[in-house]
Amino acid sequence: FDEGSGAVLPTIYERTTGAAIAAGAMNLGQGFPDAEGPQWLRQAAADAVADEATGPNQQYPPGIGLPVFREAVAEHQRRHYGLQLDPASQVLFTTGATEGIAAIILAFAEADSEVLTFEPWYDSYGAIVALAGAQLTSLPLSAPDFRPDVDALIGQISEKTSMILLNTPHNPTGTVFTPAEMQKVIDAARAHGVVVMCDEVYEHLLFDGAEHTPILTLPGADEVAVAVSSVGKSFSLTGWKVGWVTGSPELVNRVRGVKQFLTFSSAPAYQWATAQGLVDDRGFFAEHRAQLTSTRDLLIEGLQSVGLTTSNPQAGYFVLADISPISDLPADEFCRRLNNEVGVAAIPVSSLTKQNEASAELDRLVRFAFCKHRSTVETALERLQADL
Amino acid sequence: FDEGSGAVLPTIYERTTGAAIAAGAMNLGQGFPDAEGPQWLRQAAADAVADEATGPNQQYPPGIGLPVFREAVAEHQRRHYGLQLDPASQVLFTTGATEGIAAIILAFAEADSEVLTFEPWYDSYGAIVALAGAQLTSLPLSAPDFRPDVDALIGQISEKTSMILLNTPHNPTGTVFTPAEMQKVIDAARAHGVVVMCDEVYEHLLFDGAEHTPILTLPGADEVAVAVSSVGKSFSLTGWKVGWVTGSPELVNRVRGVKQFLTFSSAPAYQWATAQGLVDDRGFFAEHRAQLTSTRDLLIEGLQSVGLTTSNPQAGYFVLADISPISDLPADEFCRRLNNEVGVAAIPVSSLTKQNEASAELDRLVRFAFCKHRSTVETALERLQADL
Ligand SMILES: CSCCC(=O)C(=O)O
Ligand SMILES: CSCCC(=O)C(=O)O
Repeated sequence: FDEGSGAVLPTIYERTTGAAIAAGAMNLGQGFPDAEGPQWLRQAAADAVADEATGPNQQYPPGIGLPVFREAVAEHQRRHYGLQLDPASQVLFTTGATEGIAAIILAFAEADSEVLTFEPWYDSYGAIVALAGAQLTSLPLSAPDFRPDVDALIGQISEKTSMILLNTPHNPTGTVFTPAEMQKVIDAARAHGVVVMCDEVYEHLLFDGAEHTPILTLPGADEVAVAVSSVGKSFSLTGWKVGWVTGSPELVNRVRGVKQFLTFSSAPAYQWATAQGLVDDRGFFAEHRAQLTSTRDLLIEGLQSVGLTTSNPQAGYFVLADISPISDLPADEFCRRLNNEVGVAAIPVSSLTKQNEASAELDRLVRFAFCKHRSTVETALERLQADL
Repeated sequence: FDEGSGAVLPTIYERTTGAAIAAGAMNLGQGFPDAEGPQWLRQAAADAVADEATGPNQQYPPGIGLPVFREAVAEHQRRHYGLQLDPASQVLFTTGATEGIAAIILAFAEADSEVLTFEPWYDSYGAIVALAGAQLTSLPLSAPDFRPDVDALIGQISEKTSMILLNTPHNPTGTVFTPAEMQKVIDAARAHGVVVMCDEVYEHLLFDGAEHTPILTLPGADEVAVAVSSVGKSFSLTGWKVGWVTGSPELVNRVRGVKQFLTFSSAPAYQWATAQGLVDDRGFFAEHRAQLTSTRDLLIEGLQSVGLTTSNPQAGYFVLADISPISDLPADEFCRRLNNEVGVAAIPVSSLTKQNEASAELDRLVRFAFCKHRSTVETALERLQADL
């Protein structure tokens, strides 16, 4: 997937974590939380694995997911967003959002078609579009506020366009798309017969009163949009890889047509437990938001204290910092030194873009994760203050 | 994936199970065991989910799998087959064999290339080859003994051939390929620069002293072959979806290049527990083989007693029965009636082929699974004896 060189590299997240471990660096790189998800949820999964009487059995769950899981996703969408979905035909279990994204793109992005998105992005978007044989065009979300220029995106739609990939709340900018921005995309997609994927995995990680708009709540969305989300970020259980795709029966069915041959099915016990969490989070979402807000603020203050200009994300796991005030290095070289000489791992935003002219201004940015123990962030900041 | 009609159907396995449930039929269709895998293995997974101190954490495992898991796969290959693999570079975790198969085919079957295999097959082969934009040519394994005509397969290799897909022990025929048969394929693949995938998920389900030859034990195989296997069949835990791909560092790395964007990673607790089982199966494999041999014999005798001609599989979950002596119906229609009127679910072999002229003689065959409780098979046979 490193087109041109032919070399196959681990993802940027894995390379960053590997380098952090090797250098003994504080890992503010890969977006996984230090703190484990709720014990009651883990116990529910454990019971479902060990105890034949409580849980599902250990054999293939239905390819679309356990009924109890699909009902819980529908209930979650209804309770949080007032969205009505038929659990039998409008909810598809996937092995994490990543499998959902892969199946959606492989289902709708025909070879030689064009796919539009904003960058920086979650790296699998580009990789799967390439695997589908399609072309990706990405428009930058620009500092300082990283708002999407939706009109520019729509202006790129052509006869060749098969899909638009949205992500709100957005990784890594933390931008929460407004209903008006999303409605414009939906309307244009309907007019041009384009499918919209909306990646909503950060839906519960919102700060300062920001509000998430699930794409399927918007008028006309069900004709063109599929949404993907997962348990990983919402419950700090990124290893569980329990995700779901929602949308109209027709679109979800087309995604299933691919998904059933990627993994067929997986993880009945995790599905079982997740179902319980989605129906009642026992206060975890609010508690988690409060924790993240506090480590976000700590990180922003610390990064600014060493001279970096930072974003002020409304959502998600990440702060973007502009290194221009303190360094002329390319961001990837800056990150290499930060890891090896200062002992702090972070990700150059250039690794989350197409690296063409449009994205050049993003090249000054470094992504720092705050989904970490307070002490991890504190130690990282001490190191930055001492050695940067 | 139902090319032509444009309709997206659940897999044949799911449709069969759905119809069985609807009709109250004994499910000898989909290949999953009625009996759950060993309690000690399930307990190990439960501990790994619930107890932070014992297991891995609940966050993303490395995309290639937990180190303890990869070491256990290498140890398993060494102990059972004398095969030396480097756990760091020659073992890749996948979400079940199905993800391994998808990633392998997407990695090596370029668009417009040709892929060769034998049929009947596991349905994902054809679906993923189509997704890759490649062409599948399949040669029938023919009754009564279902031996592969390896020379005919090799004779099909052309400039356009990118891959050969092998499966031994074979689903659904139970054929165990001989070292000589496999060596011929490897030699031809080396001569023509073709990649060979070998699906070995039934490696521990062997009867009557049959011996499995892992492809990587054969001379020259490491240059061209990748093997895929999983915990599902070996430990009767088909829902765990813990699989692995093995081969040379170069080939495994190319598979990882795709796999990391299909699901990234999954199921740390299942990986952790599987590692324990692979290193020491506590006698399960032998016990399981004995049970399967006994239900196989029961099923064969019963099917023959109602007038069907049957295979005598050396391995796997399935008996193939020729319906010609008792019915002129096409096998799919026969199966529909069997399900709805007799109360026994089985799968027409025609649904596991390309359905062209080459496979016409397979159309008389029906696949019955014996990986079921003895009582399930007994009830099914009573129904056949009463109502067929
Ligand atoms: C699958 S590893 C990537 C985790 C993540 O979402 C990120 O770091 O952006
Ligand atoms: C993934 S469901 C298919 C199970 C199986 O291997 C079979 O029935 O052949």
